[in-house]
Amino acid sequence: MRVLGIDPGIAIAGFGFIDKAGHKLTPVQYGAITTEAHTPQEERLVQIYESAGALMDRYKPDTVAVEKLFFNRNVTTAFAVGQARGVIILAAAQRGLPVAEYTPLQVKQSVVGYGKAEKRQVQEMVKMFLKLSAIPKPDDVADALAVAICHAHSAVMTQKINEVTRT
Amino acid sequence: MRVLGIDPGIAIAGFGFIDKAGHKLTPVQYGAITTEAHTPQEERLVQIYESAGALMDRYKPDTVAVEKLFFNRNVTTAFAVGQARGVIILAAAQRGLPVAEYTPLQVKQSVVGYGKAEKRQVQEMVKMFLKLSAIPKPDDVADALAVAICHAHSAVMTQKINEVTRT
Repeated sequence: MRVLGIDPGIAIAGFGFIDKAGHKLTPVQYGAITTEAHTPQEERLVQIYESAGALMDRYKPDTVAVEKLFFNRNVTTAFAVGQARGVIILAAAQRGLPVAEYTPLQVKQSVVGYGKAEKRQVQEMVKMFLKLSAIPKPDDVADALAVAICHAHSAVMTQKINEVTRT
Repeated sequence: MRVLGIDPGIAIAGFGFIDKAGHKLTPVQYGAITTEAHTPQEERLVQIYESAGALMDRYKPDTVAVEKLFFNRNVTTAFAVGQARGVIILAAAQRGLPVAEYTPLQVKQSVVGYGKAEKRQVQEMVKMFLKLSAIPKPDDVADALAVAICHAHSAVMTQKINEVTRT
């Protein structure tokens, strides 16, 4: 199963594709979609939409995982992030990809095992799970990979539960 | 000049096309794009994107005007509205349409002449400006027409300033 994790944003949207085979996670490709600050927002949204779609077409994920909400940010930021998130989810839906959402708490719990984990701890675990030589930069990329790992873990869990139920 | 005013939302997105000839405003078409509550959000975003695009293709506006922010709503709402707004702005940008943004204060000032006007006053003025027999329902439609009128008014202003500057 291939998961695309996304940390949406208008200036920087982190993305990370990972493959899950059994319990093994392998990074496929990760990076960031960036847009220039002085570009009109409508153009930035087109750029994000097209880049996200091109990445999905190229790396063909089975599912897309996105962080659900940033409770600690303000309304203006939520609005801007929401717009970027909207066009990315649209790109996924147009390709028939299921979109899973996780709260920051769920991501931390899944990746570190502790809902109040520090950003740095999450990043270290991302590096460890994916056997990377360094923490991916910028933070948005590590965050995107964390959401992908979170989804991969919950998919493993769901599978386990199904196995138990079937036996 | 034809203006499309939009009041974005995930359950109901109001829209209103108006024509401006000199100082005369004429309603062309108005209504709401609605999506069902139990539909997955990604499908709802696709529906909004496709409906908004189809309306733009059919009524060919010269410009799109959208309300800028809802300062009085919470972060969760801002996020959801932001997503709907993102796919509508994307549809406009993909058609090369300029997108103008107005704050609720600007809309009220422009339509009623008073930034703290009540919702009802705005609706009455929308009805009057467009010579409608009744206030359009639901509120989202009246709000969309109000943003369109706000843009038409500021376009008139810009034109006047240009005329003064030229003479």
